[in-house]
Amino acid sequence: PDEASAASVRAREAELIKPAGALGRLEEIAEWLAAWQRKPTPTVDRPLVAIFAGAHGVAARGVSAYPAAVTRQMLDAFSSGQAAINQICGAFGLGLKVFDLATEKPTPDFTEDAAMTEAECAATMAYGMEAIAGGVDLLVVGEMGIGNTTVASALAAALFGGDVADWVGRGTGVDEEGVARKVAAVEAALERHAGNLDDPLEALRRVGGREFAAIGGAILAARLEGVPVVIDGFVATAAAAVLHAYDASALAHCVAGHKSAEAGHKRLLKRLELKPLLDLDMRLGEGSGGALAVTIVKAAVACHTGMATFAEAAVSEKG
Amino acid sequence: PDEASAASVRAREAELIKPAGALGRLEEIAEWLAAWQRKPTPTVDRPLVAIFAGAHGVAARGVSAYPAAVTRQMLDAFSSGQAAINQICGAFGLGLKVFDLATEKPTPDFTEDAAMTEAECAATMAYGMEAIAGGVDLLVVGEMGIGNTTVASALAAALFGGDVADWVGRGTGVDEEGVARKVAAVEAALERHAGNLDDPLEALRRVGGREFAAIGGAILAARLEGVPVVIDGFVATAAAAVLHAYDASALAHCVAGHKSAEAGHKRLLKRLELKPLLDLDMRLGEGSGGALAVTIVKAAVACHTGMATFAEAAVSEKG
Repeated sequence: PDEASAASVRAREAELIKPAGALGRLEEIAEWLAAWQRKPTPTVDRPLVAIFAGAHGVAARGVSAYPAAVTRQMLDAFSSGQAAINQICGAFGLGLKVFDLATEKPTPDFTEDAAMTEAECAATMAYGMEAIAGGVDLLVVGEMGIGNTTVASALAAALFGGDVADWVGRGTGVDEEGVARKVAAVEAALERHAGNLDDPLEALRRVGGREFAAIGGAILAARLEGVPVVIDGFVATAAAAVLHAYDASALAHCVAGHKSAEAGHKRLLKRLELKPLLDLDMRLGEGSGGALAVTIVKAAVACHTGMATFAEAAVSEKG
Repeated sequence: PDEASAASVRAREAELIKPAGALGRLEEIAEWLAAWQRKPTPTVDRPLVAIFAGAHGVAARGVSAYPAAVTRQMLDAFSSGQAAINQICGAFGLGLKVFDLATEKPTPDFTEDAAMTEAECAATMAYGMEAIAGGVDLLVVGEMGIGNTTVASALAAALFGGDVADWVGRGTGVDEEGVARKVAAVEAALERHAGNLDDPLEALRRVGGREFAAIGGAILAARLEGVPVVIDGFVATAAAAVLHAYDASALAHCVAGHKSAEAGHKRLLKRLELKPLLDLDMRLGEGSGGALAVTIVKAAVACHTGMATFAEAAVSEKG
């Protein structure tokens, strides 16, 4: 982070016509943004929501309330402007790009085989890095992929251990039996790959999926290019956790957009020490919670850059 | 509320391309909005932030970190587009109206006399009712007034009882001695008006202030005219509490925009059973937290009205 830019924001915040700290997290966000954008005046002029879509062999195990075909149907809906994320992007002027990660060819069922080869995992991470091409100044990482909350649970369990059931939730809305199938799939995957999950990237390759690899790549590239990141829900956070497992400061340029209703997300946020901006019981994916959180970042920038100072406005300071 | 409109929203929500309930509170908000706007398709086309500004005799007791002159200076800042609320309204297309409630003539110090006469209190409530004139479809009630967190604490203590210190916070940022002066002022006011605070309107008149009366009027008028309301922070919520004290359902057309960092606000929200949309440690007033929460309402309406149904998008339903 650029400490000089952060200091510049702090100095200006102290001069704006409000009690010190009265804008709460908006002030923190302005400072964080400037630090990672490496400029004294933060911007949200070109925010982009990137949706990474993957298809998962494990979906055949009845781990979702929806058929696997929905993944590709939703890609069409994103293109046609019909999904929730299109409405949120439209309402607040956010760009939207969808990355189709070979959804015509699902990864192998990870209870039987590794989800990706090493080459495929690396290539998918590299593809994810493309998300910030073209002058993005704030990136939201989101996803689509029937079955991917089961994958997120497997990855979280591989990285953090603990009781598998604690990492599994209802996803798109499965019933008790569906939850049991999810737990069984995760346990089978952990057993199948036992002894090969200590390296976080190897865990990603074996019990992850393509959107997880791409999100990891996007977050890395954003760090290098000075683009702050808003992480969406459980799946995107599980992908981010792979980087965190290598280096606890790897997500310092990221903020959690929201806390989703999905059970494992709260645990994951706590492990990663990410404090969500919103808590609205959303659990849709598509980057929807992260996109909505961009409004908070926009407000932070608008207040920081647009407000007058005590001197400019001739307002009396603290007496 | 209009049950038919609410039912219409629920029926459409069930058809939209997302798992049932996956948009969490956004779905509740769409339904609530339609019910109180009394139309099957809710809108946020003409949202208005109303700032009610009052001046308080009790400010002379050193209960604020800022001189009383700041109230009128901030009115100039609002007019010139220099304050935080101007930036938030500008960023999200919200209208802004400022109601100057005779700030040139502060109310008497309520530790010595009633803040308002009966006629003045009634006239101020009526003036507040003007807030929704001109086709507003969503109203945010906010305020400005040096000393008014002390007034809010007095009103909350009068309405709900309990330890005065539990209702008093740091406001604009007073130190420990300032907090002690606030507690002393509230205790003196409660003692001065003892025996006359059982009627909520009489409590408002005696230990309230003009912006509190006007906000009460605005919330009442909004109810009658089918305008849902977003309540800002501690002061606005204390004003709303007066109506709640008469009828526990009086705020059903209101949502709490945010939970502020001001100590008493959390207690008050709990008493009123209001669940805030945002929790960002803001404590500025000016309607700022409520205005920011309008983005959530806008997103709810955009998703509800703009998304395609499963049939329209040819997306497979739950299997």
